[in-house]
Amino acid sequence: MPALASKIYFNYGGQGPLPTASLNAMAASWRRIQELGPFAKPVFSYVGELIASLRQALAALCGIPPQHLAFTENVTSGCVLPLWGLPWRPGDELLIGDGEHPGVVATCHELARREQLMVKALPVQDCCGADQVLERLDQALRPRTRLVVLSHVLWTTGAAMPVPALGRRLGEHVNQPWLVVDGAQSVGAVPLQEAVAAADVYAFTGHKWLCGPEGLGGVALSRRLLEVGTPTMIGWRGLAKDPANPLGLHGDARRYEIATSCSPLAAGLLQSLHSLAAVGDPRQRLERIRSRSGALWRGLRQLDGVETLLPEAPPAGLVSFRVGGYRSQLVVNALAERGLVLRSFEKPDCVRACCHMTTLPTESECLIREIASLVTNSGTPEA
Amino acid sequence: MPALASKIYFNYGGQGPLPTASLNAMAASWRRIQELGPFAKPVFSYVGELIASLRQALAALCGIPPQHLAFTENVTSGCVLPLWGLPWRPGDELLIGDGEHPGVVATCHELARREQLMVKALPVQDCCGADQVLERLDQALRPRTRLVVLSHVLWTTGAAMPVPALGRRLGEHVNQPWLVVDGAQSVGAVPLQEAVAAADVYAFTGHKWLCGPEGLGGVALSRRLLEVGTPTMIGWRGLAKDPANPLGLHGDARRYEIATSCSPLAAGLLQSLHSLAAVGDPRQRLERIRSRSGALWRGLRQLDGVETLLPEAPPAGLVSFRVGGYRSQLVVNALAERGLVLRSFEKPDCVRACCHMTTLPTESECLIREIASLVTNSGTPEA
Repeated sequence: MPALASKIYFNYGGQGPLPTASLNAMAASWRRIQELGPFAKPVFSYVGELIASLRQALAALCGIPPQHLAFTENVTSGCVLPLWGLPWRPGDELLIGDGEHPGVVATCHELARREQLMVKALPVQDCCGADQVLERLDQALRPRTRLVVLSHVLWTTGAAMPVPALGRRLGEHVNQPWLVVDGAQSVGAVPLQEAVAAADVYAFTGHKWLCGPEGLGGVALSRRLLEVGTPTMIGWRGLAKDPANPLGLHGDARRYEIATSCSPLAAGLLQSLHSLAAVGDPRQRLERIRSRSGALWRGLRQLDGVETLLPEAPPAGLVSFRVGGYRSQLVVNALAERGLVLRSFEKPDCVRACCHMTTLPTESECLIREIASLVTNSGTPEA
Repeated sequence: MPALASKIYFNYGGQGPLPTASLNAMAASWRRIQELGPFAKPVFSYVGELIASLRQALAALCGIPPQHLAFTENVTSGCVLPLWGLPWRPGDELLIGDGEHPGVVATCHELARREQLMVKALPVQDCCGADQVLERLDQALRPRTRLVVLSHVLWTTGAAMPVPALGRRLGEHVNQPWLVVDGAQSVGAVPLQEAVAAADVYAFTGHKWLCGPEGLGGVALSRRLLEVGTPTMIGWRGLAKDPANPLGLHGDARRYEIATSCSPLAAGLLQSLHSLAAVGDPRQRLERIRSRSGALWRGLRQLDGVETLLPEAPPAGLVSFRVGGYRSQLVVNALAERGLVLRSFEKPDCVRACCHMTTLPTESECLIREIASLVTNSGTPEA
């Protein structure tokens, strides 16, 4: 992973480093497509097998049949595209976690504007543990609630949402609201199967914790969504190509795929999945990630003037914290000058450090040391 | 272009061959992103400049300000995504050319189903020349017509639609219907500026006649569409990132872009644009393309039993024809066995040969010879 050679990297949740083997796999795929075509029968077979292999691998990670998985360009598309084809009634309520990505939130507001729905926030960022999240859900649910949107792991605080329990609660609700889960910070970091089984829409990308190329992700769709929903963007990949019914759609999740995308990316992501699988199964990988994020979390908490957002060791790889009195953006800038790559948030104001399996103990120690020196130095972090 | 080394290639309209320099540019871009990040401030500057350069170059090709161009993953997305955010009234009519891509047609039908619109076909595939297309439009227009969808160059017959004249006609209509133009077979082959100026939505891809990578295209949006329409898929790329208004959109066409896509593809497409520009300006390039397609068209017409779909030399690079009595798919299969790569259509039943600037006279002569031998041999093309 050449990205890790020149810096101390803590932005896995923004984008994961790409292994050289994955870049080579993409270049080889491009060359193969050119050799066979690029637009010719042997290419269609080659790309068809490549895409089927990746679908199989990602579906296995999600614990679903491949027929329930559609490819998307990014997480946001996977979260919101299925929503436009669900049956809404004016007055239906959309309940959106207060730590959701602004793209998903903005699309839900636009959906609400057009369909005359209500958008309400579900406050979960300040919750301590699963029970409190479920309490908040119970308080927020209304008879007209028709959709709940939450991340599996919040991109700001790094807290995990109790998705299976949330799914059970919604299943008991009179309206059986749709459950949309943003898996941006969970896929590649934590086991997914129970959460995916509880969600109607579980969207993710290959370019964060899976360390694949940017521009390729997927969405797992529930049986009832596939039965009730209709796709909104239809292209050749969603069409069944039945001469007797030229506008007929595939019966499975492929109906949510649109048209030409970049096939060689699939070769890169497949290679990244192989590299991850070589390290261990999802449970073993999470243990390794948590050992790294836990060590960093503990180290930061021992510093005077540093406050972690989570009161317990992180459930996944994200460690968010505040450095007493400093604006988080300034902390990130000061660390960047020292070769440490992190990001900040404005709401809640915090610095986020992501630890993956590749995070070295020496890297976390260096970060703790640098934060300590910021705190003990007088003046602003730039000083 | 390694794709052209091992075969006689006539499928530029399906996918253009990728120059080695473009593949190298993508690999270099990926390496640069890893070196700088992948998720870090220097990457944001690098990618920001790359994307701005490509936007500038494509906007120049279209003859529009960069603020009117949005990137998309493919042509279909560019054609249909803006339609979902236009103000429709039940009973509005959508008029769709009979030679349009099934993905675009299927999405229009779904839009019509949800918004209670009417879909009507505009028969243009059998037209002889621009005047007849305009007559057909005049016959089909109704007071409630609110949208017209046509390709600039039909992917089946290769005929060019008189887009500027169509735009003037629609401008005089009481309803000023939106004009959506599919530029899949025109962009990279013919000058675009007048057609783009006449359209509200002019969508294209980089991976056909521009010989860029698959998975990156664009859409030119008219001023009135940007004023009246609202985006349907909203992600971080469409958001203006104003802390005072976190869900506020960019004022320009970027509001139609969604979230993470594959940035290195932009480096590949930019390189392909440089390679094309080195050959000549768009008008000179079209002359070269037409000299190739014209020679093939004339050669095919001299064969007994072969019928070209166009009665005049092709306006762009597509040469569609029938081989007396043979199913076109069988002709394509027989040619593939001889190393010639073409495609067929079922409606209208035809074989399509695409000629680009890279098509050699000897390649067209070989195709004419092989077709001649099919016609003169007895039995089916497989014999």
